[in-house]
Amino acid sequence: MELLKSAILEKGKVLPGDVLKVDCFLNHQIDIQLLSKMGKYVYDNFSDCRVDRILTVEASGIAFACLTAQFFCCPVVFAKKSKTSNVPGDCYMATVKSYTHGNVNDIIVSKDYIKAGENVLIMDDFLAHGEAANGLVSIVKSAGAKVVGVVAAIEKGYQKGGDELRAKGYNVMSLAIIDSMDLSGIKFREN
Amino acid sequence: MELLKSAILEKGKVLPGDVLKVDCFLNHQIDIQLLSKMGKYVYDNFSDCRVDRILTVEASGIAFACLTAQFFCCPVVFAKKSKTSNVPGDCYMATVKSYTHGNVNDIIVSKDYIKAGENVLIMDDFLAHGEAANGLVSIVKSAGAKVVGVVAAIEKGYQKGGDELRAKGYNVMSLAIIDSMDLSGIKFREN
Repeated sequence: MELLKSAILEKGKVLPGDVLKVDCFLNHQIDIQLLSKMGKYVYDNFSDCRVDRILTVEASGIAFACLTAQFFCCPVVFAKKSKTSNVPGDCYMATVKSYTHGNVNDIIVSKDYIKAGENVLIMDDFLAHGEAANGLVSIVKSAGAKVVGVVAAIEKGYQKGGDELRAKGYNVMSLAIIDSMDLSGIKFREN
Repeated sequence: MELLKSAILEKGKVLPGDVLKVDCFLNHQIDIQLLSKMGKYVYDNFSDCRVDRILTVEASGIAFACLTAQFFCCPVVFAKKSKTSNVPGDCYMATVKSYTHGNVNDIIVSKDYIKAGENVLIMDDFLAHGEAANGLVSIVKSAGAKVVGVVAAIEKGYQKGGDELRAKGYNVMSLAIIDSMDLSGIKFREN
């Protein structure tokens, strides 16, 4: 999506340690107009398929998911990072490693909010190693529901998460795929 | 706001320990249509005043803030819960006690995203003891910006947070104020 790529080039900053800092519009300050247009773009790509629910994970996925859900007229569910090792029996759980923060979190979703047979669209701000996306996929499968797509605002195409999900047959849609980045610049994958 | 009060009465559950569980529409699963109407209601109440920015705190405030910001055409900034005791020098910080989780968090906001002289609307899902709201107020003041209002979806009116902020002169707007609740029912404050 050209508008997002332009925002990344104009406002993003590549930092040492493979960090793309886009917190001025995506995940600290949120550019509502931009994310709403991104949401419409996602909707246009999935409008021929029934989406019962959008599933994301706190905190950075919530804004993008909510601004997209308006077009689908469906609820959003966000997985919570569990602070305890006691997962309530009424929750689905997945373990997710964060490469950014160097830690491991359990993420949980109440069994009330994903039901067997539903079509679920998974969304997040970033897709890199795919840990969060795979955790959300496993939660959807635990519920007996179907993953109709995995959407990321920004995919680090040089990491394995997105392509591994595609190889498994999931419909992965990233609005901007970065093939390489370093302090001298960012190169996007051609559409 | 009658629509929110109805949702609380129909779908909320009062649990032991002064917990109002509204995670089926407000803070785990998100009813996008309801929160969008709540956002419009907030806008109608503040449309005569310039709002440069909406400030909330992760994770439960993000959805309500984003769906409201669309009407104001302004960005949202969400304070992050800091995992380290080293707050970067380029951030504003406040310490917030959570009565729900029984812990203390530092919340931080990059200095880039609140500027002196701006009008900031503070929003969150709940207002009870006022810890999060006061933390956000102190961050806005640290930036030399002005708090034009403090908005909560649900205020526990029998706790001191909201009325203390009102006594200090802040424009506090809660869409539903609960005066009492127990396992037998919920009583709202009259408008």
